[in-house]
Amino acid sequence: MTESNLKYTGGILHLDGCSLRKLAQEYGTPLYVYSADRIKSNYKSYDDAFRNTDKIICYSVKANFNGAVIKLLASLGAGADVLSEGELFMALRAGIDPKKIVFAGVGKNASEIRQAVRNGICMLNIEGEQELEAVGEIVKQEKKTLNIAFRINPDIDPKTHPKIATGLKESKFGIPIRRALEVYKRAKGMENIRIAGVHLHIGSQITDTLPFKLAAESAVGFADRLAEEGIEVEYIDIGGGLGIGYENDDVSSPYDFAKVLESYFRGRPQKLILEPGRSIVGNAGYLLTRVNYIKQGANKNFVVVDAGFNDLIRPAMYGAYHNIMPVEESDETITADVVGPICETGDVIAKDRGIRGAKQGNILAICDSGAYGFSMSSNYNSRLRAAEVLLEGGKPRLVRRRETYEDLIRTEETR
Amino acid sequence: MTESNLKYTGGILHLDGCSLRKLAQEYGTPLYVYSADRIKSNYKSYDDAFRNTDKIICYSVKANFNGAVIKLLASLGAGADVLSEGELFMALRAGIDPKKIVFAGVGKNASEIRQAVRNGICMLNIEGEQELEAVGEIVKQEKKTLNIAFRINPDIDPKTHPKIATGLKESKFGIPIRRALEVYKRAKGMENIRIAGVHLHIGSQITDTLPFKLAAESAVGFADRLAEEGIEVEYIDIGGGLGIGYENDDVSSPYDFAKVLESYFRGRPQKLILEPGRSIVGNAGYLLTRVNYIKQGANKNFVVVDAGFNDLIRPAMYGAYHNIMPVEESDETITADVVGPICETGDVIAKDRGIRGAKQGNILAICDSGAYGFSMSSNYNSRLRAAEVLLEGGKPRLVRRRETYEDLIRTEETR
Repeated sequence: MTESNLKYTGGILHLDGCSLRKLAQEYGTPLYVYSADRIKSNYKSYDDAFRNTDKIICYSVKANFNGAVIKLLASLGAGADVLSEGELFMALRAGIDPKKIVFAGVGKNASEIRQAVRNGICMLNIEGEQELEAVGEIVKQEKKTLNIAFRINPDIDPKTHPKIATGLKESKFGIPIRRALEVYKRAKGMENIRIAGVHLHIGSQITDTLPFKLAAESAVGFADRLAEEGIEVEYIDIGGGLGIGYENDDVSSPYDFAKVLESYFRGRPQKLILEPGRSIVGNAGYLLTRVNYIKQGANKNFVVVDAGFNDLIRPAMYGAYHNIMPVEESDETITADVVGPICETGDVIAKDRGIRGAKQGNILAICDSGAYGFSMSSNYNSRLRAAEVLLEGGKPRLVRRRETYEDLIRTEETR
Repeated sequence: MTESNLKYTGGILHLDGCSLRKLAQEYGTPLYVYSADRIKSNYKSYDDAFRNTDKIICYSVKANFNGAVIKLLASLGAGADVLSEGELFMALRAGIDPKKIVFAGVGKNASEIRQAVRNGICMLNIEGEQELEAVGEIVKQEKKTLNIAFRINPDIDPKTHPKIATGLKESKFGIPIRRALEVYKRAKGMENIRIAGVHLHIGSQITDTLPFKLAAESAVGFADRLAEEGIEVEYIDIGGGLGIGYENDDVSSPYDFAKVLESYFRGRPQKLILEPGRSIVGNAGYLLTRVNYIKQGANKNFVVVDAGFNDLIRPAMYGAYHNIMPVEESDETITADVVGPICETGDVIAKDRGIRGAKQGNILAICDSGAYGFSMSSNYNSRLRAAEVLLEGGKPRLVRRRETYEDLIRTEETR
């Protein structure tokens, strides 16, 4: 919600000096707009905050897989955190150094593992014992060494620390910490497998630093335990998960994060791997949407916009909050639900909210839509997916065109 | 969950006589498979149940917009219920008679209304007063008459009838019934607008007939009230919404539905419009997925399959239940969560369920996936969308090929 690069000029909301109304007119709505300047400064906050720590910042591609966005991060020196063959493809295509790519995910298939081996990535984060067997088979076939880590599930009691109440013990991710040592030992004896790291990931949209402190303690402690067994690792991958302030700015920054982690990594032999995604691109993106109608229901108002949950699913799926700003400056507020055109009651972007500038034909900017926005979008209701524009020093560049009906049927096979 | 066209032959699950294992091998997984025979018999149940009622059965395209599926329904005489320009495009392309197309939705933009006018559809179901103004403008520009209905919100107290507890009064849809008469009168005087019907839609996945009885009462009563004002309508569109038995078969059939509605429509001047979607294609579709790994977590088992919520979002988004059958016949059951490869804790298809035949490499059939399956799928985690196969008399035909990485970047604009 940090809005420092947002400003009303002549009554119109500008992002990096570029009129959002003009963008909506030129490229149509719904439209995703990203600020390259903001992405850069978000990345640089990490780089700067951890300047005294030997590290790789692996951008979490799932947050936003637009090629131009990944390319921008590659140009800043970022690595990538990928979860599928598709993300690996996108990262390599954008010019990310394979030596800075980590590949996690509970369901990697043979083709995905093979691509990781062939491309010589930084490390493959193995999430289970059957996966280790699959990897063993593939490196044998490929006759090539693969760097691996195991993702360990630190099993931190969520009752003690409600912030991580995703209940790690119940989650599908990683290897339970009490079995992890045995699995590392097993991997140690395997051909073409080089044990490179320890991986941990404790959740998403975490807004204070305590969970990271616990995670770091756990990871570092485990690496020391491995060392006692003669297994020296090169990397400790602490995962991502730093949240952003959707509703307010009272969230931890990369600097707070660094302050907590630094002490654990000072003088250690391991390099730190970070996997930020949301905190790099989230507040750099805006979804522009047009007000099609103002509707009075039986006992509430509806602002009907042209973006539906096929465009931005976070409010419908997670009950997520997104700040909404009028592109045409206004002090007039109505209390309403902001709803999309999808034929489901759940297609609601904001509920019972005071909305400024909600006039038919006006444009609204749905803030903090740079992460998990376009990347989760679909063709539901046979709706075409939105276009994406990247502002580079305030100059717009179309980095994904709007879909056409031709795209909707492109993969259909017709007799 | 009706499984009459499913059978184990030689230990392998067959649909309409076709081996699902062979389909998974030939087309890969995840794979959507639809039975044309089942779609036909579902459609014919409606046609037969309402044989004594003058009607149009408008297939609700949002449930499944595959062109081959819509074409099949067009060949049976179905009309279409569409909600966007994209769905109108898909319906016309599949050969649905425009005179049998109804177009609803709260957020229609000018281009969508224009297409409805130009194609001379059966009727446009207007959902609000500002939309009526927009329609008035467009028919004036187009110099062409448009048939319209208003979608009325019957405002049935959800407390009295918990089955329709979607709380219509709170929903964005339709025009409150107490304002509807006034809006009809207003439309009556408008140029190039022909009042053709009354539209009502009370919800989705409704498994008993009481809500439909209340809806019919409301609609018929309102049509009579209109007649008193000299407004004679030709159609009463009662919407869709008949559910299917995801967990058990104890749900109302089109015959039960017809029994309730028939009496209201006997001898009436209006033609009945029905909008079934889920009950036509839902139980005709299966999502085939491969077991990649069996994982033991700290205190539960996970069956990790290769279909994620990007392929089938219903369990993650709505907590929906889908029956899961082993393609390789088996009596061995493990209690587990069936999870996908997406990196979110919520990527769960079944929770703490007894799963038969969950062995690495085996194929599972996720039942009742024909509706709101592929149509809601996305490229989240840069995953490629699945292929779709239609079984016609048991013979497979690829009706949508699997996406490639080329498809993932097709709309990206690169300098």
